[in-house]
Amino acid sequence: MASTLNLKQATGNQNSWDTLLPDFPKGPLCKYRKKASFNWKEMAVLLDGEDIIQLKNRIFSALESDPLFAHHPGEDLCREKYQELTFLRCKRLFEYDFLTQQEIIENPLKILNMVICIGMYDWSPCLQYFLHCGVFAGTILTASTRFADFVKKVYSMEIFGCFALTELSHGTNTKGIRTTATFDRSTQEFIINTPDFEAAKFWVGNMGKHATHAVVYAQLYTPDGQCQGLHSFIVQIRDTKTLLPIPGVMVGDIGKKLGQNGLDNGFAMFHNVRIPKENILNIAGDVTAEGKYSSSIKQWRLLPYLAAAYALDYFSKSLFENFVEFYAGLLTKQRSQRQTDSGREIHALSAASKPLLSWTAQQAAQECREACGGHGYLAMNRLGEIRNDNDPNCTYEGDNNVLLQQTSNYLMSWMNCIRDKVPFESPFGTINVLQDYRHILGWKFAAASVEDCMDSSVPLAAYKWLVCYLLQESDQKLSKERQSGRSDFEAKNNCQVYYCRSLAIAFIEQTVLQRYHDYTRDPSIPSTLQPVLKNLSALYGLWSLSKHLAVLYQGGYASGEQAGRFIQNAILELCYRLKDDAVALVDVFAPPDFILNSPIGKANGELYKNMWAEILQGSKALNRPSWWAEFCINKPVTGRLRSRL
Amino acid sequence: MASTLNLKQATGNQNSWDTLLPDFPKGPLCKYRKKASFNWKEMAVLLDGEDIIQLKNRIFSALESDPLFAHHPGEDLCREKYQELTFLRCKRLFEYDFLTQQEIIENPLKILNMVICIGMYDWSPCLQYFLHCGVFAGTILTASTRFADFVKKVYSMEIFGCFALTELSHGTNTKGIRTTATFDRSTQEFIINTPDFEAAKFWVGNMGKHATHAVVYAQLYTPDGQCQGLHSFIVQIRDTKTLLPIPGVMVGDIGKKLGQNGLDNGFAMFHNVRIPKENILNIAGDVTAEGKYSSSIKQWRLLPYLAAAYALDYFSKSLFENFVEFYAGLLTKQRSQRQTDSGREIHALSAASKPLLSWTAQQAAQECREACGGHGYLAMNRLGEIRNDNDPNCTYEGDNNVLLQQTSNYLMSWMNCIRDKVPFESPFGTINVLQDYRHILGWKFAAASVEDCMDSSVPLAAYKWLVCYLLQESDQKLSKERQSGRSDFEAKNNCQVYYCRSLAIAFIEQTVLQRYHDYTRDPSIPSTLQPVLKNLSALYGLWSLSKHLAVLYQGGYASGEQAGRFIQNAILELCYRLKDDAVALVDVFAPPDFILNSPIGKANGELYKNMWAEILQGSKALNRPSWWAEFCINKPVTGRLRSRL
Repeated sequence: MASTLNLKQATGNQNSWDTLLPDFPKGPLCKYRKKASFNWKEMAVLLDGEDIIQLKNRIFSALESDPLFAHHPGEDLCREKYQELTFLRCKRLFEYDFLTQQEIIENPLKILNMVICIGMYDWSPCLQYFLHCGVFAGTILTASTRFADFVKKVYSMEIFGCFALTELSHGTNTKGIRTTATFDRSTQEFIINTPDFEAAKFWVGNMGKHATHAVVYAQLYTPDGQCQGLHSFIVQIRDTKTLLPIPGVMVGDIGKKLGQNGLDNGFAMFHNVRIPKENILNIAGDVTAEGKYSSSIKQWRLLPYLAAAYALDYFSKSLFENFVEFYAGLLTKQRSQRQTDSGREIHALSAASKPLLSWTAQQAAQECREACGGHGYLAMNRLGEIRNDNDPNCTYEGDNNVLLQQTSNYLMSWMNCIRDKVPFESPFGTINVLQDYRHILGWKFAAASVEDCMDSSVPLAAYKWLVCYLLQESDQKLSKERQSGRSDFEAKNNCQVYYCRSLAIAFIEQTVLQRYHDYTRDPSIPSTLQPVLKNLSALYGLWSLSKHLAVLYQGGYASGEQAGRFIQNAILELCYRLKDDAVALVDVFAPPDFILNSPIGKANGELYKNMWAEILQGSKALNRPSWWAEFCINKPVTGRLRSRL
Repeated sequence: MASTLNLKQATGNQNSWDTLLPDFPKGPLCKYRKKASFNWKEMAVLLDGEDIIQLKNRIFSALESDPLFAHHPGEDLCREKYQELTFLRCKRLFEYDFLTQQEIIENPLKILNMVICIGMYDWSPCLQYFLHCGVFAGTILTASTRFADFVKKVYSMEIFGCFALTELSHGTNTKGIRTTATFDRSTQEFIINTPDFEAAKFWVGNMGKHATHAVVYAQLYTPDGQCQGLHSFIVQIRDTKTLLPIPGVMVGDIGKKLGQNGLDNGFAMFHNVRIPKENILNIAGDVTAEGKYSSSIKQWRLLPYLAAAYALDYFSKSLFENFVEFYAGLLTKQRSQRQTDSGREIHALSAASKPLLSWTAQQAAQECREACGGHGYLAMNRLGEIRNDNDPNCTYEGDNNVLLQQTSNYLMSWMNCIRDKVPFESPFGTINVLQDYRHILGWKFAAASVEDCMDSSVPLAAYKWLVCYLLQESDQKLSKERQSGRSDFEAKNNCQVYYCRSLAIAFIEQTVLQRYHDYTRDPSIPSTLQPVLKNLSALYGLWSLSKHLAVLYQGGYASGEQAGRFIQNAILELCYRLKDDAVALVDVFAPPDFILNSPIGKANGELYKNMWAEILQGSKALNRPSWWAEFCINKPVTGRLRSRL
């Protein structure tokens, strides 16, 4: 294994390394570079070998010296211009023709490195080039040698290709593909057809603006009406002289995405498009036939975030009320001890809740984005915008990790009272749990079944122990650091990770859970709503707690296989019980469609219809690109620029 | 606590709820909505109260009926147009004047809800409005009643305000602020000055295009040359009639961000700008004076990702070599058992490594983005582009979770050989660890000190146990599910979370670690490089393993407090040891500056100089907005549109 990799021993010496890898410019990093225990050039040669480094240098310097690849700082390139530039750059890659077949055969790793080098510059032209020359041409070449002449046209860019597998309502599950290819014996042709818009080919890279031909996956029907399973076919979709669609093909661009916007991902519908019999590529063997795969993972992925939304929403409001009380005191110039204490407590609570809320929101947005598959990556569905708009919350008004230190400092400040057995309490009661510090440290995980765990009192008790335990650990760690003669700054510094930081997080989660737990048990809650609220409270508590499971074991609160399993199974069971309530729970706080402005998230649930409508509303979705002559007339001369490398 | 919150009991009945909250449109979600165990309208009334729901309805329907707030599907709004639209919308919020002072006093929660409602539509106009009316005016109002007339001009938009605390090279740490305010006794003025560009006010919302006045935080110097600490001042920065900068002020827009691009975040440098003595706002008491906070968290945050980059890069290349071997077999039409087995093994490896690599990259990009603070959120630094371009890797060619199932199915398929004690091996050797399945299940965590743990053989042994244990658990869970009469699909489904999914992840991490561990011990590695490579291997192994710590305890591989502490402390110690090598380790694989195209990441390390240069290269950074008359002439009439609500 890894034989070629190991052959790339660090050959050469300082001189040859210097030739390959010039020094970095002088600057503030010099002093850090000097501290290194090894020579970075020797390492680079060991990892890549001289050959690959030369290839990288060749590619990087070609791009840097080529005006077509120049950066335009501060320029706000519109998507259409970016797509045009991407296509011109892709064409240019033909002219550079960085690797010959011979070089690839001698060292296949070179092709991987070439893709990475161009991708690091910009993934859009890299993917456009690779989808055309690699995926499209590669699929056809592997199928049969009889397409050799066709593939020559790919390499000379007489045609431009794409790989059309996924459909609007069917992504990964290739068995669900519904495009059909019916064999007509009388004319010896296949008839390619899209039954309805949900079966439109969708997400196909290069299809939006440029592709003249597609490898199309479709269910093959023989004249006896039998389905023979998934097969692939070469289908022409645009005229090579004009880039206008072939009659019967409706083809266009799917619109803006969260990234890779230079690449023209597209859609296509086929209305009984006839292709010659010879255009069939394969039997289905090379498409991974997937079985039915779990969809329950999605529910498990998202339901805890739904529970978190309820618990954290309640907490934010209750914290806001605490703040209003405190602010009223400020305005009326109260100078009481309670007013001072309130300020400290609110600061500690808000310093830890901003990290908790902003990280939870960030993870939830990313999880939703992934759970929606590719469609979550379409800009129109706004999951990216929601994630990106929330993102600065993780840093403004203080980096989250810095803020957490302020909360742990506050908590540590109570250790003196605990040690001296002085009674204490805080205005909003959040640190009163520490009054029973010694007693709580003796607690153990006591649930005897999964059912036992399904009440938020179980994670709440565990959290109380966790806060006390992490406080004790942080306190001991700090003493030890100080005893070893470290400065106060250094000592506190070394206590952050795994101690104070975890303490602050556990404390705020415990506080959120305590408040929500109390709320769901309030007698004023209607009996019709209490069961679902209690389930949410239990799920939020257990799910949050499960991230601390290692500490529960480590500190001896839990032991044996059962504790962890109970918690995990209770989470799954609660997800199962909340499954039927999920839509209604979202309905409760969902903003109106107009505000949400997301086709995938509209209240009518017709996600594919909504998306399809919005794509066609994009005035340029079906337009021929204004730079069509750059494909149809100005063909690249493969390898023309090789001599410049 | 939370008294008002509890007052919002679910009042009313179905009729009053229906008036407040209309039904959703019919569609495919109907059947899920019917399954709910509770009435979503009753829940909404419980959570918010009728009063708040009415406010939400009022705001939502005002925005929806106003053409200025119309959505423009498919339109690719350039940043400048978006900033103009944001300002017009912000002005419109003055005209709606959704909440009176009286309403806010009666129920302060309303202001929170108003901000959220507008923010859900778009955070840019919401923040612009809130920074002006809330933060800017609020700061001044709290300082002294003598500014009452000034604040009236804020509410009528005769002036437009911003809050200028952070500086280019000083974010959260307010003690590091370097703008000065020197009192000139002779003229009774303060002289506001920016010592150099690194002390430019930076990131200030509303400053980029619109603000006429800023609350500026500066170190106060008295005539005796003494620094009196941080104080805040009202400083005019633009002419209210023309929106042109005041002499001595250089003010502009910081450029595109990852989100919130309607908001004009800006910068300003002051060249001895004189302001009247009366413009001082406060003594420093209301700025949270922060101490020195840890920066070691950053190293701990990023170093494990650096180690992961090395281990995963090696793994990808080795997997690519396996693939080349397999592909050569395909091309030469080999039909051997080894060829078939290779295909299955490569499929299992790639199905699990795509999730591992794409998630690690996504987390690393987000972590880097956060570790860079606000500057990581500036589009020019490209951390967002890198994250967003990587993002589709988490879903294309199959959702990560679906892919992991394919790997766990492959692993589970070996249980028959294990049970029947039939000898087995795989072409690339990755499942050979299972040959010792029974023996390995008896292993225990054996390290007796932190030092003991600092070798990748320790996490590697733990991973071997983990893979065997999770295989056993998954197999038992599946049997149990099947015995309970569930279908094969359902049974597999219920085994995913916490079992098969964890198994696939642990397996691929173990494989990556095994290969990297072997590589770092290869005799061909120069002795000058081996120590740092071994440290990287140990760090990657321990850091990955630490996410599975709970399972190690749960299954009895680890016990007691020491095991977890050893692992955690070994991670910290390795981060410490690798600290000095960090820059050189990045140098080894960093692309050239031109390719990376990120001022913050340039090899010279002059991040502030690089950023400053790039901002000023943006041709419009210092331009007056083309829509300046919308501020200077067309003033909003506060509350004009209230009657329409």
